[in-house]
Amino acid sequence: MKDISSILNTGELSVGGKLWLESGGKRWFGPGPVELLEYIELTGSINQAAKKMEMSYKKAWEIVNHLNTITHRPLVITATGGEKGGGSTISDEARELIGYYRQLRLRFKKFLDEETERARK
Amino acid sequence: MKDISSILNTGELSVGGKLWLESGGKRWFGPGPVELLEYIELTGSINQAAKKMEMSYKKAWEIVNHLNTITHRPLVITATGGEKGGGSTISDEARELIGYYRQLRLRFKKFLDEETERARK
Repeated sequence: MKDISSILNTGELSVGGKLWLESGGKRWFGPGPVELLEYIELTGSINQAAKKMEMSYKKAWEIVNHLNTITHRPLVITATGGEKGGGSTISDEARELIGYYRQLRLRFKKFLDEETERARK
Repeated sequence: MKDISSILNTGELSVGGKLWLESGGKRWFGPGPVELLEYIELTGSINQAAKKMEMSYKKAWEIVNHLNTITHRPLVITATGGEKGGGSTISDEARELIGYYRQLRLRFKKFLDEETERARK
């Protein structure tokens, strides 16, 4: 292939992108939810996680509820006493999903790096 | 890896995504611009292309102007007489870019298909 980057008059060409998981063709998991789960694990609280992400508490709850609807078993577990009482943790399934998504992201990064290299050749 | 799709209680798991080209870290080319260029080639008119895409004429012009700024030579050439007089065509560079982007999209589709298969295993 001819060097496609020679078309540009400014800046270095690179290939960028975004990945997500779909269920029945609908997006249900991607960079936002994975970050939210990671922060819930880190802080033990949906409220704290929402703050870290500069997201409203309501929005964070909506994402958590949506995730819990899609999966067989809840990804986020809220202890007795309610969110502000008992705090929240993530389940083994959530950890598995995060692990899988991190690997997927690494393979995607490799794809993008290879394509960037190819485009600059 | 354990079957990540077994986490879901509904719908079939698949991996989806989006690709674009960046120049100096900024997005400048993706599904929208490629479709616009294809329609300009097809119809010989930015105006007609905008209609096909249900996009305002102003928006289409902005995209075209932006593309023409980023590249050494214009991707869209407007003949004497102005857009409504002489019509528009796309340049060889634009055709090359479209060809490259189609190939890139095929490779990305292969990546997504392979990842979907892997996630369902």
